[in-house]
Amino acid sequence: MKKSILLINCKDNKGIIASVTNFVHQQKGNIVYIDQHVDREDTMFFMRLECEFSKDSFSKEQFENDFENSIANKFDMNWQLHDADVKPKMAIFVSKYSHCLYDILSRFSSGEMGVEIPLIISNHPDLEKIARSFNIPYYCIKVTKETKVAAEREQLELLRKYKIDFIVLARYMQIISSRLIGEFPDKIINIHHSFLPAFPGAKPYHSAFKRGVKIIGATSHYVTEELDEGPIIEQDITRVSHIHTIKDFILKGRDLEKIVLSRALQLHTKHKVMVYNNKTVVFN
Amino acid sequence: MKKSILLINCKDNKGIIASVTNFVHQQKGNIVYIDQHVDREDTMFFMRLECEFSKDSFSKEQFENDFENSIANKFDMNWQLHDADVKPKMAIFVSKYSHCLYDILSRFSSGEMGVEIPLIISNHPDLEKIARSFNIPYYCIKVTKETKVAAEREQLELLRKYKIDFIVLARYMQIISSRLIGEFPDKIINIHHSFLPAFPGAKPYHSAFKRGVKIIGATSHYVTEELDEGPIIEQDITRVSHIHTIKDFILKGRDLEKIVLSRALQLHTKHKVMVYNNKTVVFN
Amino acid sequence: MKKSILLINCKDNKGIIASVTNFVHQQKGNIVYIDQHVDREDTMFFMRLECEFSKDSFSKEQFENDFENSIANKFDMNWQLHDADVKPKMAIFVSKYSHCLYDILSRFSSGEMGVEIPLIISNHPDLEKIARSFNIPYYCIKVTKETKVAAEREQLELLRKYKIDFIVLARYMQIISSRLIGEFPDKIINIHHSFLPAFPGAKPYHSAFKRGVKIIGATSHYVTEELDEGPIIEQDITRVSHIHTIKDFILKGRDLEKIVLSRALQLHTKHKVMVYNNKTVVFN
Amino acid sequence: MKKSILLINCKDNKGIIASVTNFVHQQKGNIVYIDQHVDREDTMFFMRLECEFSKDSFSKEQFENDFENSIANKFDMNWQLHDADVKPKMAIFVSKYSHCLYDILSRFSSGEMGVEIPLIISNHPDLEKIARSFNIPYYCIKVTKETKVAAEREQLELLRKYKIDFIVLARYMQIISSRLIGEFPDKIINIHHSFLPAFPGAKPYHSAFKRGVKIIGATSHYVTEELDEGPIIEQDITRVSHIHTIKDFILKGRDLEKIVLSRALQLHTKHKVMVYNNKTVVFN
Repeated sequence: MKKSILLINCKDNKGIIASVTNFVHQQKGNIVYIDQHVDREDTMFFMRLECEFSKDSFSKEQFENDFENSIANKFDMNWQLHDADVKPKMAIFVSKYSHCLYDILSRFSSGEMGVEIPLIISNHPDLEKIARSFNIPYYCIKVTKETKVAAEREQLELLRKYKIDFIVLARYMQIISSRLIGEFPDKIINIHHSFLPAFPGAKPYHSAFKRGVKIIGATSHYVTEELDEGPIIEQDITRVSHIHTIKDFILKGRDLEKIVLSRALQLHTKHKVMVYNNKTVVFN
Repeated sequence: MKKSILLINCKDNKGIIASVTNFVHQQKGNIVYIDQHVDREDTMFFMRLECEFSKDSFSKEQFENDFENSIANKFDMNWQLHDADVKPKMAIFVSKYSHCLYDILSRFSSGEMGVEIPLIISNHPDLEKIARSFNIPYYCIKVTKETKVAAEREQLELLRKYKIDFIVLARYMQIISSRLIGEFPDKIINIHHSFLPAFPGAKPYHSAFKRGVKIIGATSHYVTEELDEGPIIEQDITRVSHIHTIKDFILKGRDLEKIVLSRALQLHTKHKVMVYNNKTVVFN
Repeated sequence: MKKSILLINCKDNKGIIASVTNFVHQQKGNIVYIDQHVDREDTMFFMRLECEFSKDSFSKEQFENDFENSIANKFDMNWQLHDADVKPKMAIFVSKYSHCLYDILSRFSSGEMGVEIPLIISNHPDLEKIARSFNIPYYCIKVTKETKVAAEREQLELLRKYKIDFIVLARYMQIISSRLIGEFPDKIINIHHSFLPAFPGAKPYHSAFKRGVKIIGATSHYVTEELDEGPIIEQDITRVSHIHTIKDFILKGRDLEKIVLSRALQLHTKHKVMVYNNKTVVFN
Repeated sequence: MKKSILLINCKDNKGIIASVTNFVHQQKGNIVYIDQHVDREDTMFFMRLECEFSKDSFSKEQFENDFENSIANKFDMNWQLHDADVKPKMAIFVSKYSHCLYDILSRFSSGEMGVEIPLIISNHPDLEKIARSFNIPYYCIKVTKETKVAAEREQLELLRKYKIDFIVLARYMQIISSRLIGEFPDKIINIHHSFLPAFPGAKPYHSAFKRGVKIIGATSHYVTEELDEGPIIEQDITRVSHIHTIKDFILKGRDLEKIVLSRALQLHTKHKVMVYNNKTVVFN
């Protein structure tokens, strides 16, 4: 059987669910999972379907044509059809911190992540050794004020060459330019080391420490042009107290960062995240 | 508009979703929410639909007849149709602890709970004053070895008289008999003050203290004939450490108990819990 | 035995712990608990001791005199000696929300809280019935732009008349004036319904909903002149998702608010909180 | 300055704290941190002190002699003095699962763990490649029913040769014999993939799935002769629901296992854990 994932969003309307499920049925598909959400305030409709089709008879192109003409047009839908068996290609951007990189790669090597990782890009050479021990190409592209534009062009060429589907910033300590964001809309995943919207920007652990919070957090979000303002995919927290120094905050935070980032990656990879109004609908 | 909730479970099969959504559509209903689950291991299918019908044209009886004949029979379904606007009638059983009772009644009085509370039954007179301050009838029915059967008969009569739909044991310190369980299958909700299946039975905080756990919990579950073995609806936990005495465990536990119990009640009241194989499917 | 609690903070220095423990020993006291903290960055020392003295021989006045002259002067200490058996007098301020009030009063009536509650002050008459059912005097003092100064004077007179030690704002929807804060420094405890410093000010649930956060929180803090900027005593969080409406945020938040507030009250009541640099040291 | 950690437990008694702090003071030591606990039920006293001594004048031997004769004898203490600057030597035991190993080694390589790791012992060759990429000797010692005794002898020889201080079982899927436990009492740290005491023994995720729990956990504990009954050092949990399969439980559990295990290792390494009555006092 061929498994496909259909993502839909559109203005809410009567009969959408029946129309779509009917359509899949007529195409000899079996719906194995359906997730649906209506945002009452914006009267927006969201749906995610996992469908199975017979490998012999199913034509993705045919399905897409028919769906567009019969259903999508009628309800003015945004929609995508993904092949569940195709692993998306993920590029990892890193700087000098290794904890998120190790976490991703060790999951990758144990078969836990449904992605391909064709390359790692960094602005520093420090983590090349790790990339090598996992046999993944590592490109060190220095980024300075002067080289920023050229560096970015080089990055983009690599991303195209390797046909990258989405990017994870695994504690990549550089601001991403509009151009790169424009090429990968809702496809660049960052981990911010605070409980956004508290403590955006640099040095959030220092700010949290100064404020005397009793809980710190980490937030994984899609990168948009407003720094640290993109749609939140996942967050988690851990307790701290007066006994913890900034260094303790940082160490405790690392555990959060890697876990929260990996959850966001899993959700994105399985096409479980839909973005709307700078927020996410997460079907998990 | 009239809002109804349709709960379905049956053997998993192709075309169920399309059949059901189609049927609702044909009945001029609008599906406003759909939740669905398939237990792959047991190949069981579960679905919860919230549908809106025009008040003028909708006949519940008609819908039930047609659904039974056309869909339910075909897929051999267990199913129920609930009127979302009808508040279920809940009986509260208590003994001497007041924290869960206060919590339920203060939520009730602030309009937070979608239930009616026609009566409170207790084996002790202690909490009558609280019931009275909320204007709810309080029946004190003593339970001893000798009076157990008679007491239960009296309880059952009250439950029938008040047309009770489900029962919450808000720290009711008596074992419920088979007969009462039989009359209210998956309709008696208990709060157990441990993280089941750890520490079933009496004095779980004492056992947890002795074992030196670092986390304690509370578990709300449906009452079945095996004590503390019924389907789990909700659980939560809180941290403890060596500095906490048994008394601290008990106080911290109370906060868990009342919150976990109230969450379970909300889920049950909104028909979001389905029971199968001594487990629950919770659509929340 | 007479139990006393000694709180100390001063510049960190060698020999403080030995000096203090020695002093207590010489006074025939037995130290039953010692908590200590050093803030390395500010080189500040904090200590909390629970000591037992023989009821016959112990004179609080004598102890205070001797301690001041021999130890406190030497190390330039801020310090307080509390009688552990004296219950502090707490005033509750409320507006219209009842959940925190019910929670506090039900704990109070079950003997869980080590305070006296001589009075409840409100700017609305709505919750008087609840106060009455717990037999606690309820003073309704309207607050408008015009009456603000007079209202506050009336509040202060009541607080003095009842010899109030500290105040809890149990969702009291008014800004507290400098004058009241000045009379009760680090003695007015507020519950803010967000995970501060995220979403300060009004309508935090609405802001959290708009931002699409995956976790909401509540924060209990001492009231200072900067709104929502006072020292944080306790925080906690709960998960939310796209399925939750603002109304759901509010309901889930209420459970947080009452639990977090009650924890803060317990800590304050037991003299476990010390304030320094707009942060708290919490010995729990 | 030379930093030492003094751990004490004994029957509770008056004057212990003053005696000890005085003694340290007389030895020209500065107490920089003091943690203390009294188990009221067992009237047991626990204390952990971090002290600084001048490098020139301090003699560990002298201190130990004097302390034993003057204080320890008087109060009949169990006590240890640790040099805070000496990194304990930790052996890692693994089988085939790599997630805990990767987590430990990536922390180790980033300088996060205060240990030396002289060797890794496994009953399988699978993870040798990982050990090699971190430049740590890997000994594969097969364990079968027939070779169990010989294998263990070989393990013990290695542990002695490398002067191992404590052992971490990083998902080592073999039962540890009495002999090894006897040589490393309260010095073998295991991670059990359930929320003990729920689901001891093999296949806890399967049992948790079958029971329909809403929360799963992981527990790190010292290994004793009763399987999964040793003193608990740390626990944590994560939420699950009906949508999660056993495979999901396992994946979610892995994240818990590695985080909980690493926390336990940090606590043990910093001499923050004391064992008594099959429970732990954890000063964190």
